[in-house]
Amino acid sequence: MQRILVTGGAGFIGSHLCERLIAAGHEVVCKDNLFTGRRQNIEHLLGHPRFELHRHDVNEPFVVEVDHIYHLACPASPVHYQRNPVRTIRTCVQGTLHALECAREVGARLFIASTSEVYGDPTVHPQDESYWGHVNPIGDRACYDEGKRCAEALAVSFARQYGVEVRIARIFNTYGPRMHEDDGRVVSNFAVQALRGEPITLYGSGEQTRSFCYVDDLVEAAIRFMALSEDAATDGHAGSRPMNLGNPTEVTIRDIAELVREITGSRSELVFRPLPADDPARRRPDIGRAARLLDWQPRIGLREGLARTIEDFRTRLG
Amino acid sequence: MQRILVTGGAGFIGSHLCERLIAAGHEVVCKDNLFTGRRQNIEHLLGHPRFELHRHDVNEPFVVEVDHIYHLACPASPVHYQRNPVRTIRTCVQGTLHALECAREVGARLFIASTSEVYGDPTVHPQDESYWGHVNPIGDRACYDEGKRCAEALAVSFARQYGVEVRIARIFNTYGPRMHEDDGRVVSNFAVQALRGEPITLYGSGEQTRSFCYVDDLVEAAIRFMALSEDAATDGHAGSRPMNLGNPTEVTIRDIAELVREITGSRSELVFRPLPADDPARRRPDIGRAARLLDWQPRIGLREGLARTIEDFRTRLG
Repeated sequence: MQRILVTGGAGFIGSHLCERLIAAGHEVVCKDNLFTGRRQNIEHLLGHPRFELHRHDVNEPFVVEVDHIYHLACPASPVHYQRNPVRTIRTCVQGTLHALECAREVGARLFIASTSEVYGDPTVHPQDESYWGHVNPIGDRACYDEGKRCAEALAVSFARQYGVEVRIARIFNTYGPRMHEDDGRVVSNFAVQALRGEPITLYGSGEQTRSFCYVDDLVEAAIRFMALSEDAATDGHAGSRPMNLGNPTEVTIRDIAELVREITGSRSELVFRPLPADDPARRRPDIGRAARLLDWQPRIGLREGLARTIEDFRTRLG
Repeated sequence: MQRILVTGGAGFIGSHLCERLIAAGHEVVCKDNLFTGRRQNIEHLLGHPRFELHRHDVNEPFVVEVDHIYHLACPASPVHYQRNPVRTIRTCVQGTLHALECAREVGARLFIASTSEVYGDPTVHPQDESYWGHVNPIGDRACYDEGKRCAEALAVSFARQYGVEVRIARIFNTYGPRMHEDDGRVVSNFAVQALRGEPITLYGSGEQTRSFCYVDDLVEAAIRFMALSEDAATDGHAGSRPMNLGNPTEVTIRDIAELVREITGSRSELVFRPLPADDPARRRPDIGRAARLLDWQPRIGLREGLARTIEDFRTRLG
């Protein structure tokens, strides 16, 4: 049994992670400010003797005596992180600083939820971890993209300067039950629109591609990443090396829309709107590093994952 | 007369700026933690009735009732900013956050010293302000480069969210009297080595280019930038637009070495060492925007600027 802190533990990915960690016999402290996280996501865990919920904002420093920390706390969808860009940058940088200080203080290993957004609108496909990215430092998405890049730089600096064991995961699009119905992202938008019989909105031509990882696959990879020894994780480099986690299967936005229509049996029509500023045209992870070091690859196909996700939306919207 | 705060006012650029602002009749509050700034840089101003020195670290919040703030505080040379990368990131991000909060609190206009390092190792030449840059987020220079990119994102967010008037200057290589003799940069290295009759060290082939702006030219541009109306400075864009400030005349490192040898009359030989990681191969500002909006261009040529700089080094080393 390990003592594990999950920041953002009441969020979409965090709640699945808490569930898995509890099921594996660990003691879990879940911190969340419940801005985009929700109490109902972890309600079924609240009575459990090895689970604790702290309402806490990572912009305030914290120290918890644990063995592992999963630092997921940060709004992750444009509609949320653009609501208050100043606060988003603070959460990315100061929040991660506090997680790093806690890890250093108690000697914990630290998983950091970075993002494929550090690659921006990439000029290289697929993206592997050595790609430096293509980000607009003053664009509408900069508060998140640059905040996360800076958080990575900070994490690597803590690893090199103080020997903190950090595992930086660049998480690509993830979907599954408990997604926000109003997070403005493709899967949730399409599912909600289809279930409500409203028109399905595509931005741009719909030919831009994304790759979607089912949340269970992502959580499995995160846990394996944290189980890696320091030698294996750093892979012969000083400090920490980021690792892409995602599903490399590329699909167009339009394909998703069609699949959602099929699964829901909806007759919603497709409507097209202009592309928002700095929206990436393509993004697909090279997961060679994760496959090699974690002996991992995604198992849940898009059709199955979407069916489960839509079932969850149906229950919640019903 | 304006009341003006200069953070990093005892530094190389800051001290020249304080001098100019005092000479123009303003009241100047100079904040500096004296890490890379030096008391002797502003010693001649200390008795002046319109000048004040506060020993203060911008990582601590501050409020000063002023009309303008020039936020320069941050170690700017690799040898200094790599000494404590964690602290460098904090200074870049938290220091700028505090400057922005002060500007918001007292309604001051804020000049932010960003850097050509936000362009990283550029793939486009020369760089204009619309170029997104090419930066390694986990490299040896990331603490500074990503910290500064994040500071820009933060500043633009403050401008958009709170209406703070920010002037983001991307400052390219600047040189002149009061440079640190041990800052590890080309001009100071070469000048000190030549004056001491030691071998002049070139990294790489010496064919990589830089562009060097004499400090008086830079200070003139900064003051003009701050004098611009908000309409002119934002140039029709929401929030703030960064502006390149520098000298676009491109010279090779080897040319500098030869010129320094000539001016000092030194017989130092040139020796070559391997290039450090992520060292940019070329960097040259497109200063079209500054020329247009500020009616400005650099006036001091390299030979004259180097002669003045070397004279200063000669006095200090003597």
